[in-house]
Amino acid sequence: MKRFDQKPPAVVLLSGGLDSATCLAMANDQGFEPHALSFRYGQRHAVELLAAQRVAQALGARRHLILDVDLRGVGGSALTADMAVPKGRSLAEMTDGVPVTYVPARNTLFLSLALAWAETLDCADIFIGVNALDYSGYPDCRPEFILAFENLANLATKMSTEQGRYIRVHAPLIRMTKAQIIRAGLALGVDYGLTHSCYDPDADGKPCGQCDSCLLRAKGFAEAKTPDPALKDS
Amino acid sequence: MKRFDQKPPAVVLLSGGLDSATCLAMANDQGFEPHALSFRYGQRHAVELLAAQRVAQALGARRHLILDVDLRGVGGSALTADMAVPKGRSLAEMTDGVPVTYVPARNTLFLSLALAWAETLDCADIFIGVNALDYSGYPDCRPEFILAFENLANLATKMSTEQGRYIRVHAPLIRMTKAQIIRAGLALGVDYGLTHSCYDPDADGKPCGQCDSCLLRAKGFAEAKTPDPALKDS
Repeated sequence: MKRFDQKPPAVVLLSGGLDSATCLAMANDQGFEPHALSFRYGQRHAVELLAAQRVAQALGARRHLILDVDLRGVGGSALTADMAVPKGRSLAEMTDGVPVTYVPARNTLFLSLALAWAETLDCADIFIGVNALDYSGYPDCRPEFILAFENLANLATKMSTEQGRYIRVHAPLIRMTKAQIIRAGLALGVDYGLTHSCYDPDADGKPCGQCDSCLLRAKGFAEAKTPDPALKDS
Repeated sequence: MKRFDQKPPAVVLLSGGLDSATCLAMANDQGFEPHALSFRYGQRHAVELLAAQRVAQALGARRHLILDVDLRGVGGSALTADMAVPKGRSLAEMTDGVPVTYVPARNTLFLSLALAWAETLDCADIFIGVNALDYSGYPDCRPEFILAFENLANLATKMSTEQGRYIRVHAPLIRMTKAQIIRAGLALGVDYGLTHSCYDPDADGKPCGQCDSCLLRAKGFAEAKTPDPALKDS
């Protein structure tokens, strides 16, 4: 089918979780044509890739690319290695230092791959759904990290150095609370029933309800005063 | 065997080519214990990984990790896609703009993975054998790119933000000519017969002799007034 619109492309990092789904809807809403990018990186919660596929389709991503990057050889994280995912922690405990679910240099790596694809697509806009408020323990979710990556991107690529295009890394959720994110997403028609947040789901993909990610999600829906559609009995 | 030395570790990016082999020898010479890191990224010249293994072993790397990152889905380069590798170009042609052998964001990506491994190893030093003189067409081989990555690394990681360690990205070859690199490597005992530079080797791994990389290598050995041991008849 011939397309008559000329929306500029944007690469959107899509994990299949609540934040990145909202980020994809925002890219759409800002007039970009989203190209969703996900990773098979040895994560124990690979069920999130199925969620990413559902979200990409439901929100009309032009393409959805899943890249293989095996981080298990690198180790160092409860999300890829054989370490226990912490359960039942308070918000104070979650934000006290960098958690074991931190994957070394993960956002640096994911943004690098987004940059590579963006350059191939002749695309100068990258969206990442990082958030500095609810989960302050990850160094690579802070505004200064995003700005440093944007600076790097503009020195690293043919597109910026030869064609003089400015590459922008958009992090629209960075200063929002989880409740604000949920409300913004609902206003944009995001179906959170399609998303997956749990770090440690069971074999059927059912969320554990007790890891940091499940607890932050529950807190967000509670504060947004709306039920989590992913928890409805089916 | 128990080890009594306490050399600090360094992650060294190792392609199997002449530059990265020299870089590994320099890291060794500067008193680091090298951990060599290579990538299987869909490159058509995967024979370079065999060279990387030989070099890592010959130069006494403590470990050699090969990570899988499939860049073929990203496309955009003659090194990973089905494009022709240019042959028989003059130095002026090679350095006029970014060549098609440029892989989008490759050094950003490789440094990201080096950073991830470095953090896991509790290692604050990364070596990369980029060179800004002989092949000026790659934006991610310039000093300002390396500095921007170092800046990013120090914002991105638990090691730097929580433990206050400064992560250094060493690029000891960045201002050297190919002849200077070869002379430095020979002085450190590098056996260049183990290295592989060609972008487009035949099925037996034999270099084509005409791609930019082969031509720059030949020019380097000519200027260093020493024969290339990889070209000896066997």
